Amino acid sequence: MFRTVPADTPLGDAFHLYDTTLRDGAQREGISYSVTDKLTVARQLDSLGVGFIEGGWPGALPKDTEFFARAADGELELRHAALVAFGSTRRAGMTAAEDPQVRALLDSRASVITLVAKSDRRHIERALRTDVAENCAMVRDTVSLLVAEGRRVFVDAEHFFDGYAADPDCALRVLEAAVLGGADVVVLCDTNGGSLPTGLAETVTEVSARTGFRLGIHCQDDTGCAVANTIAAVQAGVTHVQCTANGYGERAGNADLFPVIGNLVTKLDMPVLPEGRLVDLTRVSHALAEIANLAPDPHQAYVGASAFAHKAGLHASAIKVDPELYNHMEPGDVGNGMRVLVTEMAGRASLELKGREFGLDLAARPEAVGRVVRRVKELEAGGWSFEAADASLELLLRAELAGGLETAAEESDSAAALRPFTLESYRVVLDHRSDGEVVAEATVRLHVEGERVIATAEGTGPVNALDAALRAALTRYLPWLAEVRLLDYKVRILSGEHGTDAVTRVLVDSGDGVDKWTTVGVHGNIVEASWLALCDALVHRAARQEADSVRA
Amino acid sequence: MFRTVPADTPLGDAFHLYDTTLRDGAQREGISYSVTDKLTVARQLDSLGVGFIEGGWPGALPKDTEFFARAADGELELRHAALVAFGSTRRAGMTAAEDPQVRALLDSRASVITLVAKSDRRHIERALRTDVAENCAMVRDTVSLLVAEGRRVFVDAEHFFDGYAADPDCALRVLEAAVLGGADVVVLCDTNGGSLPTGLAETVTEVSARTGFRLGIHCQDDTGCAVANTIAAVQAGVTHVQCTANGYGERAGNADLFPVIGNLVTKLDMPVLPEGRLVDLTRVSHALAEIANLAPDPHQAYVGASAFAHKAGLHASAIKVDPELYNHMEPGDVGNGMRVLVTEMAGRASLELKGREFGLDLAARPEAVGRVVRRVKELEAGGWSFEAADASLELLLRAELAGGLETAAEESDSAAALRPFTLESYRVVLDHRSDGEVVAEATVRLHVEGERVIATAEGTGPVNALDAALRAALTRYLPWLAEVRLLDYKVRILSGEHGTDAVTRVLVDSGDGVDKWTTVGVHGNIVEASWLALCDALVHRAARQEADSVRA
Repeated sequence: MFRTVPADTPLGDAFHLYDTTLRDGAQREGISYSVTDKLTVARQLDSLGVGFIEGGWPGALPKDTEFFARAADGELELRHAALVAFGSTRRAGMTAAEDPQVRALLDSRASVITLVAKSDRRHIERALRTDVAENCAMVRDTVSLLVAEGRRVFVDAEHFFDGYAADPDCALRVLEAAVLGGADVVVLCDTNGGSLPTGLAETVTEVSARTGFRLGIHCQDDTGCAVANTIAAVQAGVTHVQCTANGYGERAGNADLFPVIGNLVTKLDMPVLPEGRLVDLTRVSHALAEIANLAPDPHQAYVGASAFAHKAGLHASAIKVDPELYNHMEPGDVGNGMRVLVTEMAGRASLELKGREFGLDLAARPEAVGRVVRRVKELEAGGWSFEAADASLELLLRAELAGGLETAAEESDSAAALRPFTLESYRVVLDHRSDGEVVAEATVRLHVEGERVIATAEGTGPVNALDAALRAALTRYLPWLAEVRLLDYKVRILSGEHGTDAVTRVLVDSGDGVDKWTTVGVHGNIVEASWLALCDALVHRAARQEADSVRA
Repeated sequence: MFRTVPADTPLGDAFHLYDTTLRDGAQREGISYSVTDKLTVARQLDSLGVGFIEGGWPGALPKDTEFFARAADGELELRHAALVAFGSTRRAGMTAAEDPQVRALLDSRASVITLVAKSDRRHIERALRTDVAENCAMVRDTVSLLVAEGRRVFVDAEHFFDGYAADPDCALRVLEAAVLGGADVVVLCDTNGGSLPTGLAETVTEVSARTGFRLGIHCQDDTGCAVANTIAAVQAGVTHVQCTANGYGERAGNADLFPVIGNLVTKLDMPVLPEGRLVDLTRVSHALAEIANLAPDPHQAYVGASAFAHKAGLHASAIKVDPELYNHMEPGDVGNGMRVLVTEMAGRASLELKGREFGLDLAARPEAVGRVVRRVKELEAGGWSFEAADASLELLLRAELAGGLETAAEESDSAAALRPFTLESYRVVLDHRSDGEVVAEATVRLHVEGERVIATAEGTGPVNALDAALRAALTRYLPWLAEVRLLDYKVRILSGEHGTDAVTRVLVDSGDGVDKWTTVGVHGNIVEASWLALCDALVHRAARQEADSVRA
């Protein structure tokens, strides 16, 4: 049997950090976990030190039944967390022991079971089509049976806040039935998610005073306040919080586990994780996004890639001196980091900070920094954007430090000075043939190490063909090129300003299995813009190798 | 001069709904508004009925200077909102009148000016490198000068909550300097975003009691509580809230305007919008995401596409009978709708509604509707999206009603059956020549009215060249084509799903001076995807003319 109390957490059983990603989180449109995914999610949550992991609804969903079976058969070893099965109270008009759904909960071999119970009279009467007395009997019977079988039981009081507002006595009777049956915690659920912190906290305080029960909270994000509601409930006395990773869940989602943890630990000084685990917050958040096949939200509080990214040029010099004045907490404490973004608002200070990230000493070269600041402003006025394209910015800096860019032609092409080849010409031909087939072919003419190289390649589209031709031409000279992959490609058309023509901005993400970098190209012609970004991507690898060898 | 008090809002000047998308929102990584974008954003916000629109920082950013100049020269007519310029207090050691940055604020011709002032002693001493007395003088002087010049002035007290916690007297002196100078509202800014609602509300209550000043609130989302903090501040007495569209902003972002409005209107019964405008909430949110070239968040509270989406299953019948038991408010009130996910019936019903919009009677053709529902599902699984591309969807419907699509090849090309021409082939050639020039040339071979037509044209890029060649070939046969213009062009690369290759989705906005319509094309090759969208765009005009003549 699994444990019923979290292990190695400073607060022990006094505070429950309860995750329901695998059950309520999976209600999010687009999420579909396999059983293997579910096991991986549970391991990740356990590695962070969450106290309770709700694994699903055995009996209701075949995948969930299998998950609990495999977990109990030894595939899931949890070091901290207790595993929880979710289910419903018995149906009306039968005993709990007769209900196959209740049976399935026992068969799941989970030691902790959370039962959902209706606590809003309208739902009891209109959806469940029974009365309050029978509903309370269903709750008490089912809890009693599970407790008699040695299980620890929590009860989710569904639609509690709406129900309490409409008929407080009915809502409280349901809580009472749960506790009389032997439930340890009754969880007040804002199922429709319409609460705001002030009102929710008042209700929690009132219910706590009237019942004395151990209370939990479960919030949905329909007012955009799920995290705040969860925290307000804790301040009002609940000692059990239900959340999902990255706020995954139905509609607007659930209370997001990661900011809830961040707030509890760093703002309310509650050590809800095992010692030394807060630093895993960012890693686990991103890993769980990966498993759900969703892009991490860069603007997520505490753990987003941009959560500590500063854009303002104005404050860059102050940020350099006193970073703690500009961050609400130390980013490293949650495994995140501060970043300074270089934009048209940028000044010298932010560029120097950026140089430090790249390992370039710019302090000794003020005139070079001045030239790069001017170039960045000019280029951004023409549609370039370096804030996401660190690798292109680095090339601009390196080119400038290596002696500056001499000609106007090169000025529009940041990588030209550093390229290990020169371009004579390229041609891309796209054919929609009379048989309906669409083909792309590119030919590049380059000069490399004193030789003239011509290469032709086909591709699914113009950029793909050009990339293939460039590789075909260069791989003999730059063998590491075989490892560099085009990972992602983004296009933005910038409408014409000041009477100029529209330009196309292309961002290319590249990787070599070790590093990942982003480059940018801008031109009136999308293929040329892509060419510029592709060249920067290749030169980035070459330049870094060279810089490393110079430093060594 | 622009107005200083919002027009036609029930609460008049008593409550300020203040938007800073164009200034603080633009700090979000990846957002880069053109001046035209900024004018469009301002018009959208005004159409919703926001009271104050902060347009930017004239003098500090050339784009913002241009924005205010063009706005004042008549390009921006606001029906409800007052336009606000943002700027800083004078520098230390000079008079306000001498400071060119203050001058630029007056030159912007904005009637309302928001000044940012430091209110945290540590920032005053370590970032500004001055003392509290001089800082207060800077605030008071600058406000006085602007008020003497006839401007209405608000003051953003930067880092207020951290500053008040560290040194309350210093923070209050800054507020006092602002009010003594003549500022109407002092805005308490949680600049680092580290606050939680309970503590923030306590500070607001205390400051209000100690000063009696009119207070505003500006929250960042670093604890995931910006919306809740804003609402808590209103409950504690502030009458001016600063938000950004979709929460755009630096780091984790700002308080999201749309849930803040939803909460104020539907939960606190505060009529903060002009009558009848709440229904535009969803539309404006999505339009502003589009202008920022960001995907709308489907899980955004109130306005997200999934905000009222229910995974049917267990509760399907109950939801159908009593939807109000499962939604925290009526979705239609904010222009959103409830969705019960994946039922064929829902697909048919919405398509019939859509057909009615297009003036097509689908009720009599259930089998055609069934086929289109199936086609739309297949195409969307392959990366197509008709949500924004009404004209392409209409063509799909018209083609189906006109007799169905016969071949597999045509199935991937919605317009083919309705095109007034057939394509034999096209070729696009892109040359980066050895003299550095980049040229694009396209040749199309078409059959029109029994004749074979070949036309060649040049363009700035492949799509532009192809568009030009298509027009060159067809204008003789379709004279109205001369009026049709390509207005905008958006590209999204969709990463491969289910082991397929990545595809490119192109959206084309076209117009003829009377109408404006959007079409979509999807293909592995960006040029072919563009071709499909371009053809749909032309056929849309042709098909509508024909339909009109049939109806007439």
